[in-house]
Amino acid sequence: MRVELITVGDELLLGFTVDGNAVFLARELSAIGISVGRRIGVGDDTAEITAAVLESLSRADGVIVTGGLGPTSDDVTRPAVAAAFGRRLRRDEAIVTRLREMWRGRGRAGELPVANLSQALVPEGGRVLPNDHGTAPGLWLEREDSRWAAMLPGVPGEMRRMFSEYLRPILVQRAGRTAVIRSVTVRTTGVAESQLPEILGDLAGGAPAVSLAYLPSTDGVDLRLTVRGHPPQESEHLLQTSAALLRKRLGHFAYADDDTDLAEVVVDACRRKQLTLSVAESCTGGLLGARLTAVPGASDVFVGGIIAYDNDVKSETLGVPAALIEDHGAVSEPVAISMSVGARTVAGADLAVAITGVAGPLGGTPEKPVGTVWLALADRTAATARHVRFFGDRNEIRYRATQAALDLIRRKLAG
Amino acid sequence: MRVELITVGDELLLGFTVDGNAVFLARELSAIGISVGRRIGVGDDTAEITAAVLESLSRADGVIVTGGLGPTSDDVTRPAVAAAFGRRLRRDEAIVTRLREMWRGRGRAGELPVANLSQALVPEGGRVLPNDHGTAPGLWLEREDSRWAAMLPGVPGEMRRMFSEYLRPILVQRAGRTAVIRSVTVRTTGVAESQLPEILGDLAGGAPAVSLAYLPSTDGVDLRLTVRGHPPQESEHLLQTSAALLRKRLGHFAYADDDTDLAEVVVDACRRKQLTLSVAESCTGGLLGARLTAVPGASDVFVGGIIAYDNDVKSETLGVPAALIEDHGAVSEPVAISMSVGARTVAGADLAVAITGVAGPLGGTPEKPVGTVWLALADRTAATARHVRFFGDRNEIRYRATQAALDLIRRKLAG
Repeated sequence: MRVELITVGDELLLGFTVDGNAVFLARELSAIGISVGRRIGVGDDTAEITAAVLESLSRADGVIVTGGLGPTSDDVTRPAVAAAFGRRLRRDEAIVTRLREMWRGRGRAGELPVANLSQALVPEGGRVLPNDHGTAPGLWLEREDSRWAAMLPGVPGEMRRMFSEYLRPILVQRAGRTAVIRSVTVRTTGVAESQLPEILGDLAGGAPAVSLAYLPSTDGVDLRLTVRGHPPQESEHLLQTSAALLRKRLGHFAYADDDTDLAEVVVDACRRKQLTLSVAESCTGGLLGARLTAVPGASDVFVGGIIAYDNDVKSETLGVPAALIEDHGAVSEPVAISMSVGARTVAGADLAVAITGVAGPLGGTPEKPVGTVWLALADRTAATARHVRFFGDRNEIRYRATQAALDLIRRKLAG
Repeated sequence: MRVELITVGDELLLGFTVDGNAVFLARELSAIGISVGRRIGVGDDTAEITAAVLESLSRADGVIVTGGLGPTSDDVTRPAVAAAFGRRLRRDEAIVTRLREMWRGRGRAGELPVANLSQALVPEGGRVLPNDHGTAPGLWLEREDSRWAAMLPGVPGEMRRMFSEYLRPILVQRAGRTAVIRSVTVRTTGVAESQLPEILGDLAGGAPAVSLAYLPSTDGVDLRLTVRGHPPQESEHLLQTSAALLRKRLGHFAYADDDTDLAEVVVDACRRKQLTLSVAESCTGGLLGARLTAVPGASDVFVGGIIAYDNDVKSETLGVPAALIEDHGAVSEPVAISMSVGARTVAGADLAVAITGVAGPLGGTPEKPVGTVWLALADRTAATARHVRFFGDRNEIRYRATQAALDLIRRKLAG
């Protein structure tokens, strides 16, 4: 099956938005063996959308349109696609009732605004794709020649869930599942992209029938293995064999597969060893705690910590001697160590990790340039520190510091 | 002038790449008054590219094609666009000489690979856009009806520089500079998209010559005003007048313009009033601190705070009485108030904001479903709390909670 993607919104044509929805859909469709013929971005213009849908359906079996289902006057996807199918719009009272219930459930004052009623319009013969996470329902329309259009909301969270819960099942059934494109990503951290070819040796270019892509980001370098056009079982076997070889060569640089965040790996490792964890953060200001608590169930291991941005908070809350800060500076090995020991004690945890650094853009010196970071890890018996110099802007430096801190814990627990 | 953008590459259709080139070009073209009619992504397929170019030229004055100019066999943009224009490809010896020089200059061993010679092919009547930063030259082709195609490399750095140095000057000359596209975004928070039409009244659809787009996100709803086709000064005047009207109607819902984050607004407001700020975070686990410290210069006002994820940390570090937690639950008004007072005292700040809530996916109850959040704000004399119910997944709920907490501070300081 061949599908095209249409993303609706003026902001796309003005360059204000990255088309993350099309990226998500392209990936998801590939995974179920559906190829994407074209990706198209059009403005909030009824005639443009109608024309684009008709063109796509002249080339492909179906088209997925995202965006333009909101309640305001610039949301014209519903009438535009209905026009492409020659269908009239009718108000669906079940949707109206649901919208009213949601409005009241959110504790909003007054009646449901009239604008929202446009979201209850359904083209004749259309099928509603429920939106369990927002107001805009999705729609499915099919022609006599069995070519179809699906409309999904533009809000990424709502679009993703509607696709996974309602549209994907329909497409899987239609497409069959014979020839697929499968990928696995082996995630690494603490190693530069340019070092990888040497570490990987003859695997650096991929394996027969398995392509290898290097995807660097602030997390580290992800290695994506892809197999196309083989039957599912064979693809899976090829992929898993290649991934296993790759992981072996990478050793401790490989920390997880696919979308797994390093914070999840750390939370899992602590849980397995029944250890509790706390943090002391200076330049990252809470970002490490935020990453750890983004993991559902983090409360099994993470107890909390201290955001010690100001030096007085370092001294008074974490018990870092003021003289230590004066003698060595806040960004130094002894202060990092003292912060980690303090956080462990204050929060009553088995382990504590501390971060202190110069995130920039100001505050750098010749001895401690922007990007200088000290990390420390304390357990019940000792504390160790590590110095790293990161590059990038303020937010990249901060994020990389949290990644290195998490990696410190991961490697310690791995032994 | 109206232009369409075609991005070439299988990786785009597989969802492995975000189309950052189209974002860049759309923004740059808008700035010089050229409107983008469509954005199209196609695979590395000669016939597909030829068809897409011809279709674009039936709708627009010109088309910019990025990608597919590399030396490998999957790079087919050159022959595909030449075919769309009915032109033959000829080898340009000046390009061959330059490629050979580059090869040697980079200290590569042996002769220039044969594959690279394809990059020296130029369609009859074509104009070369030099690539000062890579091997793939760009190309410009024009038809008798003066419709045109420009080909740029897909490597973002090379594409951007080639656009700025060689293509933009051509386009500015063709388009004239009298008509521009200008935008301003008025950011709002704490108000639903569907309530806005009522609040904005006759401004809800924009103003004469000024279009209005509603862009909802986890930050709130951004309102983007856009003016097209007027001379620069007139555009600016139209925009500023409309934005001022809009802000007046929006009242306290409007917090900033364009890309300004609410955390920046809060840091600025505290700095102006010479107030220091601290936080106590339960379900957000440090995310509020992370957002505040993402602002350069946050240390002028933000001293730090406590990540009180575990109830013991709430009691022992923030001094929240254990009985209070037992009687009311950790997610409650009195605990939020007590956390804010504790954070203010412990960190020695003028103001403190506290967040405690149920981020999910587990932990919800009928009385306190997932998304229930209590926020509190303490100053030197008193503390007040606010209850909110957020929707979305764990991370959306957490982010929205930090946005509401920041808004609490903003509104307090605004009086």
